Amino acid sequence: MSNGNCIFCKMVAGEIPVTKIYEDDVSLAFLDIRPVSDGHTLVIPRRHFGRLHECPPEEVAEVASRLGRIAKGVSDAVKCDGYNLLCNNGRAAGQLVEHLHFHIIPRRTGDAVFGRWPSYSYEQGKAEAIAAEIRKNL
Amino acid sequence: MSNGNCIFCKMVAGEIPVTKIYEDDVSLAFLDIRPVSDGHTLVIPRRHFGRLHECPPEEVAEVASRLGRIAKGVSDAVKCDGYNLLCNNGRAAGQLVEHLHFHIIPRRTGDAVFGRWPSYSYEQGKAEAIAAEIRKNL
Repeated sequence: MSNGNCIFCKMVAGEIPVTKIYEDDVSLAFLDIRPVSDGHTLVIPRRHFGRLHECPPEEVAEVASRLGRIAKGVSDAVKCDGYNLLCNNGRAAGQLVEHLHFHIIPRRTGDAVFGRWPSYSYEQGKAEAIAAEIRKNL
Repeated sequence: MSNGNCIFCKMVAGEIPVTKIYEDDVSLAFLDIRPVSDGHTLVIPRRHFGRLHECPPEEVAEVASRLGRIAKGVSDAVKCDGYNLLCNNGRAAGQLVEHLHFHIIPRRTGDAVFGRWPSYSYEQGKAEAIAAEIRKNL
């Protein structure tokens, strides 16, 4: 299952060169061509799915089972202090390529790659109301 | 396997209340008490692991297989335009609780929850050098 207009599908097919980290029958890992830190890696399922919830759970599981090993390899290689695993779903969330991909982003103490974490508190009763709505939609 | 000092282990054990979204024998999902957007959800393995690469791949797979369904449920409930799946590993990456957890963060077009995506380009030869180092460390 591939999408002829998808740049990641072309990478999987070998039609566009990638700086490859790892591949197997399910997944492909390569360096992001526009990193936010050195070693910024993308891990994708070989098959084309747009978003996380559109990929069959067992295929998410297969790809996800590779993430720890790859993240550890990236971390050891670039000697970072931590890393983010990030999967953007939808343009509103920063997804630029419509083929499910997991970013592994090496981080260093104080690097301010993602500066702001704009957390707040729910007003009373709101969290439970939202949770009830989510549970209804599961 | 639990850690007596871990707040998430206490939530799993029912010793600290949570606004529960979902749970099964492997995972627990609940609302983040300090959200960055309404519906901001955390999904964790019931067992205690610090970071993604410290969790057995098959357990990452089990938890990950639930993420799409939960993300879809959250999205449908709060009617967002997209979502981020985010897993911070290490204090340098923003991990505050040392129990592996996946954030599901509802996003709306233009919300600027995470404003900056400070990408750059590698100088010539650098990407291949980093990739070679990562491959050695896999």
